[in-house]
Amino acid sequence: MATIKDVARMAGVSVATVSRVINNSPKASESSRLAVTQAMEQLQYHPNANARALAQQSTETLGLVVGDVSDPFFGAMVKAVDEIAGQTGNFLLIGNGYHNEQKERQAIEQLMRHRCAALVVHAKKIPDEDLEVLMKQVSGMVLLNRLLKGFETRCIALDDRYGAWLATRHLIQQGHTQIGFICSTHTISDAEDRLQGYYDALKEHGLPCNDRLVAWGEPDEVGGEQAMTELLGRGKQLSAVACYNDSMAAGALAVLSDNGIRVPEEMSLIGFDDVLVSRYVRPRLTTVRYPIVTMAQQAAQLALALANGGDRPEVTNMFSPTLVRRHSVGGPG
Amino acid sequence: MATIKDVARMAGVSVATVSRVINNSPKASESSRLAVTQAMEQLQYHPNANARALAQQSTETLGLVVGDVSDPFFGAMVKAVDEIAGQTGNFLLIGNGYHNEQKERQAIEQLMRHRCAALVVHAKKIPDEDLEVLMKQVSGMVLLNRLLKGFETRCIALDDRYGAWLATRHLIQQGHTQIGFICSTHTISDAEDRLQGYYDALKEHGLPCNDRLVAWGEPDEVGGEQAMTELLGRGKQLSAVACYNDSMAAGALAVLSDNGIRVPEEMSLIGFDDVLVSRYVRPRLTTVRYPIVTMAQQAAQLALALANGGDRPEVTNMFSPTLVRRHSVGGPG
Repeated sequence: MATIKDVARMAGVSVATVSRVINNSPKASESSRLAVTQAMEQLQYHPNANARALAQQSTETLGLVVGDVSDPFFGAMVKAVDEIAGQTGNFLLIGNGYHNEQKERQAIEQLMRHRCAALVVHAKKIPDEDLEVLMKQVSGMVLLNRLLKGFETRCIALDDRYGAWLATRHLIQQGHTQIGFICSTHTISDAEDRLQGYYDALKEHGLPCNDRLVAWGEPDEVGGEQAMTELLGRGKQLSAVACYNDSMAAGALAVLSDNGIRVPEEMSLIGFDDVLVSRYVRPRLTTVRYPIVTMAQQAAQLALALANGGDRPEVTNMFSPTLVRRHSVGGPG
Repeated sequence: MATIKDVARMAGVSVATVSRVINNSPKASESSRLAVTQAMEQLQYHPNANARALAQQSTETLGLVVGDVSDPFFGAMVKAVDEIAGQTGNFLLIGNGYHNEQKERQAIEQLMRHRCAALVVHAKKIPDEDLEVLMKQVSGMVLLNRLLKGFETRCIALDDRYGAWLATRHLIQQGHTQIGFICSTHTISDAEDRLQGYYDALKEHGLPCNDRLVAWGEPDEVGGEQAMTELLGRGKQLSAVACYNDSMAAGALAVLSDNGIRVPEEMSLIGFDDVLVSRYVRPRLTTVRYPIVTMAQQAAQLALALANGGDRPEVTNMFSPTLVRRHSVGGPG
């Protein structure tokens, strides 16, 4: 492999000049910039990012911790953050936390060891006190989908409780009074808040509200299938079900279809998140929109500004979800 | 932030000893290992991965280039490679090529600059000659989903043509004679090979075989909707359609449902890939299985072995797809 000395020799400049060109120093002249670039191309010389990072104490990398990249919700998040990284000349480093406290911590620490000065973190399992320590250590760390007391201006979160209230109120407004809820078994605030929002709406309208109306599962299609099967098995006279997310709603829809129960004629169904699945199941899902792309973009911009000392962009620290009406909700019977 | 000197002082050892512990040198004694580890924890010292990488000429990072991480097919690929990375103590660096020659090249070069010695690359747009140069430069680079002449033992690919032949033959065996094909507009070998496999099967059975039976779109749900609409609009008496992938099949299914055409009673539909969507649309999709998880795992293991000079794992360089029978294929009318 070619070295920096080979490049200097071919370009007819000093090693220091090559280094200036590589690091975009204003001291490098246009002619040496051209000569060095051409020599680098011809020799296929790739400047060592590690050496450059050490010299600059910055790595041009933006770190991102997600739950699980194979989940379409996180896929959308990665893509949004990667867009900002690309626009700003940064490279994206990704770690998976797999909704596990130890793995979330490992992912953050590995990104820190790689000297990511800007970090966007989606971690729901690390306790508040531990997260506080990390936030203090890394000034360019921004939390996505979590509101940490004392660090609110470095958080971009969604009002989950309001979103589930919105979904449930929509069912109530269509005339439903027997409304079930399909909830996630993950012990994270999203699940607690969405369940609470569902209860809020029922109580507000004086409707029955108890554990027997709620079924649980993993927050994916299979979990939704199991929870819907459980609800049907209890023999309750439900006419509508609100779901923790769209994937669970897709699973619930499949079970209803397999049992010959028509949606929305015999059962109304509402999702949460508005990921792609909500658009290509039939009927198309009525759901609650989680503006994850905008939120992830703002988190990335904020993390980069905090890390590089640039102007702080205007961001929304607490987003409000909105209702998306499609075809899975109707009146009762 | 604490430095290596602070750690040495607190642990009561030399800086060299701290360095030995960090780099897992066998020369470090058990007692100094313990003292250093404790001091690092107390001082919250994170050894600088960049400095370590320079010293070791290895970065403990595994690089991965995918098309687009927000596509569920690539999501599954990332997860499989990340599992191998996790098991072997490596950290995953991901770059998106977005099915664009320049972006694929950028992603590979950035990973090389970050001194990823092991690289798994899914890049379909870079011409063979350019890819050859890169393969020669990086001995730990493995190609996924592409067979490059002269580097066959460093490629893990799928026989796409055989897969589409298998799908089309299945439709023919059910008695269909008027069979359409929904193809991807991406100019990559996958699209050409799958179209060719469809033609192979038709010719082999003496069936009509022409451009008017083929419609095109982006390889996603929206593209599938457009292509199916196009096929219906041509007024051909098709009784079955083979699709480039499951996402396009899901889009096609939605259009058929919207037009009151029952699947499989009035139209049979077969997908390709066997990603999650094939299981939660209704009817469940009959499809061709792309063993992407196994393929991605083998590619990661091979890349790490090549980069680190370990024993070369046994891998399959050309995988064969298999048929997965679900409920979207029946007899003609």
